[in-house]
Amino acid sequence: MKLYDGGRAPNPRRVRIFLAEKGIDVPLVPVDMAALEHRGEALTRLNPLKRLPILELDDGTVITESVAICRYFEELSPEPALFGTGALGRARVEMWQRRVEFGLLGTVSAAFRHLHPAMREWEVPQVSEWGEVNKRKAREFLCHLDGQLTEHAFIAGEEFSIADITALVAVQFLKPARIAMPEGLTNVARWYDNVATRPSATA
Amino acid sequence: MKLYDGGRAPNPRRVRIFLAEKGIDVPLVPVDMAALEHRGEALTRLNPLKRLPILELDDGTVITESVAICRYFEELSPEPALFGTGALGRARVEMWQRRVEFGLLGTVSAAFRHLHPAMREWEVPQVSEWGEVNKRKAREFLCHLDGQLTEHAFIAGEEFSIADITALVAVQFLKPARIAMPEGLTNVARWYDNVATRPSATA
Repeated sequence: MKLYDGGRAPNPRRVRIFLAEKGIDVPLVPVDMAALEHRGEALTRLNPLKRLPILELDDGTVITESVAICRYFEELSPEPALFGTGALGRARVEMWQRRVEFGLLGTVSAAFRHLHPAMREWEVPQVSEWGEVNKRKAREFLCHLDGQLTEHAFIAGEEFSIADITALVAVQFLKPARIAMPEGLTNVARWYDNVATRPSATA
Repeated sequence: MKLYDGGRAPNPRRVRIFLAEKGIDVPLVPVDMAALEHRGEALTRLNPLKRLPILELDDGTVITESVAICRYFEELSPEPALFGTGALGRARVEMWQRRVEFGLLGTVSAAFRHLHPAMREWEVPQVSEWGEVNKRKAREFLCHLDGQLTEHAFIAGEEFSIADITALVAVQFLKPARIAMPEGLTNVARWYDNVATRPSATA
């Protein structure tokens, strides 16, 4: 199998961090997103939605969408569990993964895509008012997250999970999106120091 | 346990259809979303993000996010499998569930929230340009979906799944969102006639 990778972009990074946490080695095929290579003919055949990453199995089967690729590897190699364990544990991870995805990664990405000059060819049309709304939503969500992290070591509870990976990637995307971390979020800061220094964070 | 329900809104409906497909009966607590009851003090205590549905277990544990609630019941009652079976089957359902969620339910909802006069108090500020962009994205995704349905009975393959539930709810939300179904999508039409006449669709 091989993984068509997109370098520093948040979604390809999520999958690389997930694989590093699992200790799974998948050959990467680098794709130059800056040159819009992921929108070229060859990759559009694999993913008509023109997004990365893309996992291609040896028989040609294609899986796209970061979380779907992660879930495929969770099913193949259940340990360490990154989608939770037991009915309630899995539901909790799903709940927080979605909250973080919509409330943080989604809003930070929207701010970046609708406001950054480098995104003019990517996001057509850029709607700057929508970008500004998302800056606010991202900051509001971080305050909400600080509350959750008062009581828990990790986002979905006491175990590291895919929700932490999504949040880590989103927090590191604040800078390119030109969003300032709200002041005084000591629990987010403690959590960030913890997850950003795990070996997987360099993946 | 009890499920705080939101009537005709798409997310509460997704969970009710899911439960009907599983044959699971959960006592519903009706919440009057039109009167903004889900933003009141009692429900904000259960879900600080002020959204429905909310599942409350007998010990007071709260699960929010429609797909997390569905996954909880999938774990408790695996049959019929609505999140797929096997590593590849589960990855396929996750992939299509996400594609439909972002490409269709998300875009139709954004068009509704940012353009409909009834949403003025809900979506602040309404960004009409963003609403119009989403009308276009929703129509584009439906054309893409028609291609997938050329080859398959259901969205994620030959088995009915949560991706079909998300898509059914989204297609039925086109009308309030004032989005016209693109003409000539014969595969979407065939799929819709099939899923909209299942007994669960009235849930």
